Amino acid sequence: MVQVPLKQFLLNGQITEAIENAATMHPADVAETLREIPFEIQMEFIAKLLPERAADILQEMKLDSEADILSELEPTKAAEILRQMYTDEAADLLAELPEEDSEELIALMKDDGEEIKELLEYEEDTSGGLMATEFVAIREEQTVEEVLAQLRQQAPSAENAYYIYVLKKDQTLAGVISLRELVVSPLDTKIEAIMKRDVISVPEDMDQEEVAHIFEKYGFLILPVVDEEHKLIGIITVDDVLVVAEEEATEDIHKGASITPLETGYDGTGILTLFNKRIFWLVGLVFVNLISSGVIASFEKVLSSAISLVSFIPLLIGTGGNTGSQSATLIIRALVTGDVKVSDWGKVFLKELLVGICLGLVLGLTSSVLGIFRGGVEVGLVIGLTMVSIVIVANLIGMLLPFGLTLLKLDPAVASSPLITTISDATGLLIYFSIAAIVLKL
Amino acid sequence: MVQVPLKQFLLNGQITEAIENAATMHPADVAETLREIPFEIQMEFIAKLLPERAADILQEMKLDSEADILSELEPTKAAEILRQMYTDEAADLLAELPEEDSEELIALMKDDGEEIKELLEYEEDTSGGLMATEFVAIREEQTVEEVLAQLRQQAPSAENAYYIYVLKKDQTLAGVISLRELVVSPLDTKIEAIMKRDVISVPEDMDQEEVAHIFEKYGFLILPVVDEEHKLIGIITVDDVLVVAEEEATEDIHKGASITPLETGYDGTGILTLFNKRIFWLVGLVFVNLISSGVIASFEKVLSSAISLVSFIPLLIGTGGNTGSQSATLIIRALVTGDVKVSDWGKVFLKELLVGICLGLVLGLTSSVLGIFRGGVEVGLVIGLTMVSIVIVANLIGMLLPFGLTLLKLDPAVASSPLITTISDATGLLIYFSIAAIVLKL
Repeated sequence: MVQVPLKQFLLNGQITEAIENAATMHPADVAETLREIPFEIQMEFIAKLLPERAADILQEMKLDSEADILSELEPTKAAEILRQMYTDEAADLLAELPEEDSEELIALMKDDGEEIKELLEYEEDTSGGLMATEFVAIREEQTVEEVLAQLRQQAPSAENAYYIYVLKKDQTLAGVISLRELVVSPLDTKIEAIMKRDVISVPEDMDQEEVAHIFEKYGFLILPVVDEEHKLIGIITVDDVLVVAEEEATEDIHKGASITPLETGYDGTGILTLFNKRIFWLVGLVFVNLISSGVIASFEKVLSSAISLVSFIPLLIGTGGNTGSQSATLIIRALVTGDVKVSDWGKVFLKELLVGICLGLVLGLTSSVLGIFRGGVEVGLVIGLTMVSIVIVANLIGMLLPFGLTLLKLDPAVASSPLITTISDATGLLIYFSIAAIVLKL
Repeated sequence: MVQVPLKQFLLNGQITEAIENAATMHPADVAETLREIPFEIQMEFIAKLLPERAADILQEMKLDSEADILSELEPTKAAEILRQMYTDEAADLLAELPEEDSEELIALMKDDGEEIKELLEYEEDTSGGLMATEFVAIREEQTVEEVLAQLRQQAPSAENAYYIYVLKKDQTLAGVISLRELVVSPLDTKIEAIMKRDVISVPEDMDQEEVAHIFEKYGFLILPVVDEEHKLIGIITVDDVLVVAEEEATEDIHKGASITPLETGYDGTGILTLFNKRIFWLVGLVFVNLISSGVIASFEKVLSSAISLVSFIPLLIGTGGNTGSQSATLIIRALVTGDVKVSDWGKVFLKELLVGICLGLVLGLTSSVLGIFRGGVEVGLVIGLTMVSIVIVANLIGMLLPFGLTLLKLDPAVASSPLITTISDATGLLIYFSIAAIVLKL
């Protein structure tokens, strides 16, 4: 959907032609094209647009690019553009700027600035941080005709007009009515006769992941946010939540590989930050790994009398780690999506015990053949028995750790693949050398 | 938001009271309560509801539970309920049933059945599989007043009335108008004067992950689906996409641990299926692991003359595996979300080279201290040098493999943590023994 001409006009510096060309394009497509254009030309283009159009396009860009452009614009121009944005977008953007810049802009935004200032006080990843203050509020004693007239006058943006909130005198939420119901009702109907009274709302401090779950559960397009006294203070639209869902998935995926989640995308994260997000876990795991080294050191005599056992170490502990990663990943995701509850642990234990036995038997058989081929029947027996035991045990470790962490009110995602692998390495070695010592009578 | 009384009424078998109690509850909350109730009581409750209410509640349940209930109901009752569902929901549900059951129900649904039959022909994970056929279509020569009258008569559900599609005589898409624009325009305005002409639509065979990206990019609530001739054939609402986003995230997370993605949630997946989804990769990785065994076997002489080297194997290859998992996970996710493009590989290579050097230096220093403590200065030197090299190399393997897979038009997620760990094990051992042979002059 990206049109080639716009890019060409921009690259040639033909800003007027570019503006004309972009006029019928969706702001998201214009924003996509701008990503591939040098910053100076982006600036020149945005500066020449009407504030409303500039706001539409900026809102579709990445937050850090938006902030770069905004801080280079004339402050009065920047404030004008900010006033045309949705309040939630404007607040997110101002939060990216240095404090003195953002204070200057808020002052220039006058009345609108006050509203933004309040929004900035909410934690970024809560319902308060997600919400916008553009909602349509009416009274229950109004008629359909009066409300329609009010809508014509206020001309709210399309998305925010779909649900109209009915407030009591003290601003608390009394009901909700959809634009469709309004349209299909006789003009003299009183709102109180047609409004829905049980409005599902969220408190201002709810975690954004929970907000996303509520949208998903009820299939809502818009969710009202209320304060402690049940007063309506904002609305969250589902499109913001779609972005949250992707962010949360990325966070979960990063945690699964022992990476402290990045705040910006990979592309926007510098080398030092990447280093910081990774080194903590890697060094920590080195110390967990020392247990494995200790196990080997204490069995050194066994090993030197049967050196061929060493060559099976990566195979055995590697397979154990892979099995444990699988079960940990399955369980963590099931706990996060609510597919499995903590109280289900007994049922899940049994299930993974059985799955582990099946996996262990197939893997044990495969590797015992490899063992016989390399070191005879006795070695084959050791390898086969060890593999069965390691797979079953590692599978259960991978399953139990996320449950245990959840019970201790910790994040189950701490049971990442690297941690599970490292723990099952040590366990696997202990199993291996014990079985070898018994079977080979070392 | 789940009310305790409903559960009690149901458990006591007081179905009439339960129906009364549930009347003001959101269908999603009723469905949540039903999950905790024995199947026979669920059946009795659903069977006694009016078809419309039963449809609302069933649509909020998990697909497999829905299918269980539907197949136990009287076929005429089941068909009546299906007719009250959104067509996309009804089609998904019928696809779960055995073919002869679904054919019987479709026949009982009469006209509505025909529509469902057509929907069932689309692939489940494409735009055609996601879409519903309930949309409001008008002509450009109609006036606002005529369209409002049509809406009153058709009484479409709230979500589908927000965007009204303007079709040409041949059913192709000419424009779109939002309900809000309709409401704020004078009654005698012609639709063609106010409709938006550049409608963004998706083809019927687009992959659902791509559909989700379009919703996210443009912030749409509804997206029209067109066939090859640009005729409007259905609409997708954003709430369905929110479910898709979670499914796709789960798939990506499972792939990251070398698990073939489950079609149903963990809870609904049997032991044999879990086994099947996991064993393929585990056995495959055993064979990759044989490379490590081969490396050790070929260095057996070196090892038997310095048996203490063995105890560092898990530490060195484990850390390499962890580092590689981290970089592979970061890159795969960045490629999936579009944060990094394939053409960026050179830039990313440089970035990961630098990050790898930083990580390697810290980890090398830490582990050389451990090496000195255990085996003297020379061993410390071997361990430190090996650690630096392994970390840098494993980090680059983790980064290069996803790019390489994408270039070969394969899924980058194949570069899962277990695969990367297994490959860097073999590489790490080769590095370790080579450095040891040189430094210790073995």
